[in-house]
Amino acid sequence: MKKVGVAILGLGVVGGGTYQILTSHREFYRRTQDVDIEVVSVLELNRDRALALGVPEEKIASNIAEVVSDPEVNIVVEVIGGVNAAREFVLAALNAGRTVVTSNKELFCKYSHELERAAKRHNAGLYFEASCVGGVPIIRTLLDGVQANEISSMIGIINGTTNYILTKMYEEGTSYEDCLKEAQRLGYAEADPTADVEGFDAAYKLSILSSLAFHTKVPFAKVFREGITGITKEDIADGRKLGYVVKLLAIGKQSDAGIEVRVHPAFVRMGHPLASVGDSFNAVFVTGDAVGDIMLYGRGAGALPTGSAIVSDIIYAATHSENKYSTFKNTAGADKDVKFVSDFESAYYMRMTVEDRPGILAKISTVFGKHGVSIVELMQKPAPAEGKVRLAIVTHTTREFSVRAAVAKINTFEDVAHVDAVLRVIS
Amino acid sequence: MKKVGVAILGLGVVGGGTYQILTSHREFYRRTQDVDIEVVSVLELNRDRALALGVPEEKIASNIAEVVSDPEVNIVVEVIGGVNAAREFVLAALNAGRTVVTSNKELFCKYSHELERAAKRHNAGLYFEASCVGGVPIIRTLLDGVQANEISSMIGIINGTTNYILTKMYEEGTSYEDCLKEAQRLGYAEADPTADVEGFDAAYKLSILSSLAFHTKVPFAKVFREGITGITKEDIADGRKLGYVVKLLAIGKQSDAGIEVRVHPAFVRMGHPLASVGDSFNAVFVTGDAVGDIMLYGRGAGALPTGSAIVSDIIYAATHSENKYSTFKNTAGADKDVKFVSDFESAYYMRMTVEDRPGILAKISTVFGKHGVSIVELMQKPAPAEGKVRLAIVTHTTREFSVRAAVAKINTFEDVAHVDAVLRVIS
Repeated sequence: MKKVGVAILGLGVVGGGTYQILTSHREFYRRTQDVDIEVVSVLELNRDRALALGVPEEKIASNIAEVVSDPEVNIVVEVIGGVNAAREFVLAALNAGRTVVTSNKELFCKYSHELERAAKRHNAGLYFEASCVGGVPIIRTLLDGVQANEISSMIGIINGTTNYILTKMYEEGTSYEDCLKEAQRLGYAEADPTADVEGFDAAYKLSILSSLAFHTKVPFAKVFREGITGITKEDIADGRKLGYVVKLLAIGKQSDAGIEVRVHPAFVRMGHPLASVGDSFNAVFVTGDAVGDIMLYGRGAGALPTGSAIVSDIIYAATHSENKYSTFKNTAGADKDVKFVSDFESAYYMRMTVEDRPGILAKISTVFGKHGVSIVELMQKPAPAEGKVRLAIVTHTTREFSVRAAVAKINTFEDVAHVDAVLRVIS
Repeated sequence: MKKVGVAILGLGVVGGGTYQILTSHREFYRRTQDVDIEVVSVLELNRDRALALGVPEEKIASNIAEVVSDPEVNIVVEVIGGVNAAREFVLAALNAGRTVVTSNKELFCKYSHELERAAKRHNAGLYFEASCVGGVPIIRTLLDGVQANEISSMIGIINGTTNYILTKMYEEGTSYEDCLKEAQRLGYAEADPTADVEGFDAAYKLSILSSLAFHTKVPFAKVFREGITGITKEDIADGRKLGYVVKLLAIGKQSDAGIEVRVHPAFVRMGHPLASVGDSFNAVFVTGDAVGDIMLYGRGAGALPTGSAIVSDIIYAATHSENKYSTFKNTAGADKDVKFVSDFESAYYMRMTVEDRPGILAKISTVFGKHGVSIVELMQKPAPAEGKVRLAIVTHTTREFSVRAAVAKINTFEDVAHVDAVLRVIS
């Protein structure tokens, strides 16, 4: 039976979960995978934490050099997070010919070119399933499950924190601020929630997933990004009335026009498989030219779900001899011949406050008409301010830049009309 | 670049789809997978069909010996269906050292032991993603995506025909017979629908999937099977009122008590991710000890979705050098030390017609009490027959055999009470 020695760098939430899975399942993997996986080394500055997890004292390394020079270490698991130390440690491991398994989305998103080059040069494996959507095997699926397809579209709910907040806002009718506080209290959101609520986390993951789906490097800088901090109770309530639920979506599309990648909140029509993905669950909805629509659903974070992805990568690395690397030109930026679409197409929801007198609606309609924006549905109700009404409008599919131009124009009518919210709509 | 020659046995719906994908995507696979896949041979008795698909005449083989002795053939795709010729052809290919990719669930379910032995002996690969759930990569996920987990439960909607029929019954309130006719008219159901509506198709797939999930051979004969032909408009309507939708489920569970495998219609609570899987879509909901709940969703049948699975297997076989076989003892029947549970646990829905007079409900309750069956919810309404009422009952979790015994006892009260329907319930 093949014997594999694993080192774990960092025993935080995910590192702890990984350690726990590997030690409790060792006999199970011997029986079912015909491989004996042993944790032979951990790098964790907080020795007490390591000891509390049951790591024998002699397995606690004191620096990265010790880990990567250990002849018993075949696979190095990086679960430190951040980019500085993590990048240094991962490169050290790859340069020593050790296969690396990482959960670090920011690192892989920003430095995949450098890491892949080092891995190739030293004939080491590089696995990163845990960097995207926790335990859901979306990367394995893109690489080995639907690789027969040209992927035209990928729509994901790939950040658990924001999905938890938006689900609570929908279910309880409470404000963004209150739901964020609740999420922080429960440990679903960090003290500084920026990375989640402003869409950075989702954008890192979308960069990785769309690079794999579209077979070309999709740099983080190309991802259009808008967070959920501006979502109000009114948006959620309007959505409910119109038959939509608000989700933070990560969308990647490829067509003859080019690649579009964007992270933003959107109205998702009830009945769409993504609409019922609630709480901190994640899902990715993929459309391929042969397979049609498929969706993967599960926990996008947490010690054991993310640990599941890491350990599945370890077993995969241990039982497959090829180290496969992406076949797209691996540069820090985008391939030169790839176009990115920023004036993408979508349907839109707009909420505006307008003066309640004849002629205003005509004025607004004229602006929409000039910009080629046509209305599917319109709801009107009294606004809190005297003499004003609120309009909720859903448009046909149109272009992003047309909508922005129309909104800018309407907002010049300061006295009589103001656009309070714009959200994209998925049917 | 690696060159791979493929032979396709049978150019029916799935074979035709596979041929189409391989020929139209050849350049795409050269670019993205670094492999040149060419269809070098087809075996199809209907030469006109092959020619109509664009197969060059010289590639049409006239018998299996010609195919498997062709030195250009590396991978043989079996999409004939049925077990007799298919088994002979697949064995011929494996015995000639050719890797086999098959979509044949009945063949793989019944003869996996024989096929795997032949494959091992001749160092050939054996791939069968397309045998279960069409384009959804559930087998790849079990083998390479969640293999770090001990799987405790798998609940699938894995037959598109029955899901189409049950969805129509729910949406339109029509009868089973009318919906079956409509499904036949649209090509979703065959002229003889037995394999689908009696659950054989789902049971073959469940046998394969639960063998992989539980790392031991789960023979078809161990699968409890009940079809959807007895489902009535009344069951669907009661379900709607109680908050359930009826689905044909394939359930596999493993616990200390043993393995339970069963295919039967069931009430699924609205809000469960499986409840919104409509039309001919399929989904499999898997629970692992680390990953928690994940679900895969997509098209379970059709030329291109199933072709997607076949071509993904071809690419996988072409780009991985190891031929991996199941590690469980590969016999025709179950491993001797494995227990199967037939007295499984579930909640239940029961519909009965009872005489409308005092004391009857007490009599029924007494029977339930004696068998340890306790009631969660009870709905009563007038029955069509004079002096009768209909009861719809949902129970707490109880044992299958207790319910059967209670139902048998109640049905002895012929004059005053009769159980018209029993369905298991998933929350």
